[in-house]
Amino acid sequence: MTNFDGLLLKEKIYETYISIGVNDATARFASESMVQTSLRGVDSHGINLFPHYFRSFQSGRLNKNPDFKFIQKKASTALLDADHAIGHHSGIVAMDKCIEMAEKNGMGACAVRNSSHFGASSYFGLHAAKKGYIGMAFTNADALVKSFNGKHSFFGTNPICFCAPLHGEEPLCLDMATSLVSWNKIKNYRRSDDLLEDHWAYDKEGKPVNDPHQAASLSPAGDYKGFGLGMMVEILCALLSGSVIAKDMLAMFTSPAEAQRQVSHFFIAFDIDSFINKDSFVESLTNMVHRLREEPSQGSEPVMAPGDPEKKTYPIRLADGIPCFDEIIAEYVAINPDFKKCLLKSN
Amino acid sequence: MTNFDGLLLKEKIYETYISIGVNDATARFASESMVQTSLRGVDSHGINLFPHYFRSFQSGRLNKNPDFKFIQKKASTALLDADHAIGHHSGIVAMDKCIEMAEKNGMGACAVRNSSHFGASSYFGLHAAKKGYIGMAFTNADALVKSFNGKHSFFGTNPICFCAPLHGEEPLCLDMATSLVSWNKIKNYRRSDDLLEDHWAYDKEGKPVNDPHQAASLSPAGDYKGFGLGMMVEILCALLSGSVIAKDMLAMFTSPAEAQRQVSHFFIAFDIDSFINKDSFVESLTNMVHRLREEPSQGSEPVMAPGDPEKKTYPIRLADGIPCFDEIIAEYVAINPDFKKCLLKSN
Repeated sequence: MTNFDGLLLKEKIYETYISIGVNDATARFASESMVQTSLRGVDSHGINLFPHYFRSFQSGRLNKNPDFKFIQKKASTALLDADHAIGHHSGIVAMDKCIEMAEKNGMGACAVRNSSHFGASSYFGLHAAKKGYIGMAFTNADALVKSFNGKHSFFGTNPICFCAPLHGEEPLCLDMATSLVSWNKIKNYRRSDDLLEDHWAYDKEGKPVNDPHQAASLSPAGDYKGFGLGMMVEILCALLSGSVIAKDMLAMFTSPAEAQRQVSHFFIAFDIDSFINKDSFVESLTNMVHRLREEPSQGSEPVMAPGDPEKKTYPIRLADGIPCFDEIIAEYVAINPDFKKCLLKSN
Repeated sequence: MTNFDGLLLKEKIYETYISIGVNDATARFASESMVQTSLRGVDSHGINLFPHYFRSFQSGRLNKNPDFKFIQKKASTALLDADHAIGHHSGIVAMDKCIEMAEKNGMGACAVRNSSHFGASSYFGLHAAKKGYIGMAFTNADALVKSFNGKHSFFGTNPICFCAPLHGEEPLCLDMATSLVSWNKIKNYRRSDDLLEDHWAYDKEGKPVNDPHQAASLSPAGDYKGFGLGMMVEILCALLSGSVIAKDMLAMFTSPAEAQRQVSHFFIAFDIDSFINKDSFVESLTNMVHRLREEPSQGSEPVMAPGDPEKKTYPIRLADGIPCFDEIIAEYVAINPDFKKCLLKSN
């Protein structure tokens, strides 16, 4: 592992995208999201994916200059055709539309079709919450979570993100896959050849496995509850946008590089003042979070609010850099030798 | 156990409420929700609670003639002060307001304060879905779920309900507490003196317990994920309505009978046609549900969609009646001897 300097890396990713003809906004949102996500410690959805996204722009899977088209029939709802933009960009365009509708009408929701992997859903929820709104973000993904009672996967890891502003600190941020653990965790266990914990994953026949190399599907979080929530996310994203469902979606890494995947998303923004005075809401929420953190702890870890671990990691990684696997750094350098200049030190 | 005839019971509950001065709409929605919920097999939130609600109307905790007051600042959002109505009624009033806003603006959301226990959240989601909308319902409740890493409960079982229309059958209905199991399940294990499964519950010090009599708090569904979702529900319900949070709320059964509990709820309705043609949405969702049910099963149970077990139970209980504990039937009969006429047979 070697550490990238986050801010230098963000700039260099931006420049590298620009150098192959990616438009300014796409390059800006994609580089910002990747680095923010890794600074927050969410390694599965941050800078590790840059080489993959870069190749996807070159192969034509991702559109370097997407033409976003909104269809808006009523005041608080919209459908966005993202023209195969990288999801980091389409998500911001959609969330900004939600904020605009929320400002005017109290809330707004936007379904997005013809998009692609959007990185961490927290990027969009935080975008709204930093502007003072409650933001929610959802996406579907290719089938990877075993259906409850079934042998095979049916829905994706279909995350739910909920963010709200806090006083004196970054917003509250819940960002969770509806699977018990992420597929990336399974891949890390494959690298280290460690055994998976019970109930994490299943083999091709739907039987529980501990061998990470046999894992073919993931357990939903809370069994049928996570499975049901994954279905809710699928309906909001794929069906309200008129797109393909998880089971029919091309896999992110193993399908042809040029094939467009038709990922779909869903976003909601609530204008807090439309319900209750925003200042008193933020004060109540901040008080609740403080009370929660002061609850007696069961073990060595304190009681935390969603997003607290990421808040701890952020300043550390901002100072010490973002650790990255050497094989991924090699991919970076093969794309642009200048990425070497963004490295800080070896661990 | 003896079985109540569902339709006779609904009528008799309605009449009994009317006889003590409960207004027509309150009596109608409360009786309908309780019986529908029990016919669907959800015994924790149906007819078993009637004696408790009845006593709460008599003690003054519940308002027999609530004066509902909406504060609406913008087109798609509203805040309802429910004047201590029974939640079954305030929830329908709020969801109808959401539907009205969704019809006009694509979606609507309503926070509700000064309400009370609203029974099963499915009642409100199904109400919206039967009218062709996507309906979501949330409520807070007194603290019963152990905070992640903590010793004590902080949030309630804070359920999430999501319903959407299907072609040729009752709507899809996900209705789940954000705890792993319900408190009612613990109470049933206390009755039978069976041991709880691992990870279901904790004692007063936050240690895992199998003895149901030692249980003081519940495990969140999917550990920190269910805990985070419970917090999301708390924010939407309690903080967006400016009400008290779970930790400060009076317990349902053990606090003074006349004390008003200030339960809060949150509802959302989406107008499907505002996003995508409704007929094609319903066809896509129906196809997805059929495909899911045809997935190869791992065991003796087929793969099911959320709400499928309840759909199987409904016609059986409509024909054979709703089983009820004899001690609860005794409470019914003490309230009104005519309830005897609603009984079908002993099991």
